[in-house]
Amino acid sequence: MWVQRTFQLPARSRGFHLVTRTIVDAMPEIDQVQTGMMQVFIQHTSASLTINENADPDVRVDFETAMNHAVPEDLPYVHTLEGPDDMPAHVKASMMGASLMVPIGSGKLMLGTWQGIYLCEHRDHGGARRVVVTINGE
Amino acid sequence: MWVQRTFQLPARSRGFHLVTRTIVDAMPEIDQVQTGMMQVFIQHTSASLTINENADPDVRVDFETAMNHAVPEDLPYVHTLEGPDDMPAHVKASMMGASLMVPIGSGKLMLGTWQGIYLCEHRDHGGARRVVVTINGE
Amino acid sequence: MWVQRTFQLPARSRGFHLVTRTIVDAMPEIDQVQTGMMQVFIQHTSASLTINENADPDVRVDFETAMNHAVPEDLPYVHTLEGPDDMPAHVKASMMGASLMVPIGSGKLMLGTWQGIYLCEHRDHGGARRVVVTINGE
Repeated sequence: MWVQRTFQLPARSRGFHLVTRTIVDAMPEIDQVQTGMMQVFIQHTSASLTINENADPDVRVDFETAMNHAVPEDLPYVHTLEGPDDMPAHVKASMMGASLMVPIGSGKLMLGTWQGIYLCEHRDHGGARRVVVTINGE
Repeated sequence: MWVQRTFQLPARSRGFHLVTRTIVDAMPEIDQVQTGMMQVFIQHTSASLTINENADPDVRVDFETAMNHAVPEDLPYVHTLEGPDDMPAHVKASMMGASLMVPIGSGKLMLGTWQGIYLCEHRDHGGARRVVVTINGE
Repeated sequence: MWVQRTFQLPARSRGFHLVTRTIVDAMPEIDQVQTGMMQVFIQHTSASLTINENADPDVRVDFETAMNHAVPEDLPYVHTLEGPDDMPAHVKASMMGASLMVPIGSGKLMLGTWQGIYLCEHRDHGGARRVVVTINGE
């Protein structure tokens, strides 16, 4: 069984945002999968996806602090036409990744208790972001 | 053919640890797969998985040095209640990732000669870590 | 339907290189897949794969700058026998990742308009790099 759906996540401020509920609600077929896999793929190069802590919002604030430290805006970049936030956004996007793979078991995503799906918006004004979600399983 | 199994990796010290043999031994069905894929997924947000050099233990020591440099403990984090190692652990976990996808061919994982699977323990005292391993193939 | 093929990407200079066309040309079966997934897996630990901006070559130059900042060569590494570029190469490889998963829909890779596949060569003299490409779909 394969299911694939493309849709937009609404524009978010720069930072890290929990979108688990939005993704799950868009894919009701998850509950028909006994064993399988879900991919979430973002079709952009300055926003990304990751899995991390789903409880304390401070964790998402600190993610922004840590990623700005790892990939600062004041390096001697050549590609600066789109603003100082653009080139770091590309690098952060590759560090986090464009794709998530989440196992499915007994009709549910097999996320750990504290795991949630983050949309990582690395631009100051990124706009809506398109994702392709694909389910494969039996 | 789908096979899925959840099990625990025993507690390790903070750092990077080779677990290829443990994973392979837990999944004897790999040798029945002509062409396919294995996912290893960790159900935690302060430990992670990666693939890297399987020979010299010094590489794993240096991984700890480099990741502590990239994500230092002394940034102005807000989420500090769980100790100074906690917030960096979350960020490192997302940089490495919670999921590995390894191709299977002719009944074997198609890892390169020097590739092994690392459990990345980012906490000082992380405890046992639960993984979900899923095989899909024909 | 499963298809798997192993082949080499020719040696590249240290840095980030677009290889989308090479990968797609090697996998003509993509156009037979209505819904599915393609994995690209690199069998090395000092080169990696990522998806990022496919238009301005300056972005790839700046990737090198940013990754050298995040993982500098002058940390107190223990594993130094293979040269000062080797240990940072391993860490960068894990930050970017050894595996890409790209959804396939209606016979095409579902990359976004600006997305391309990068070979990330982290060594000064890395040589040819072997990849395993696996397609699964219907």
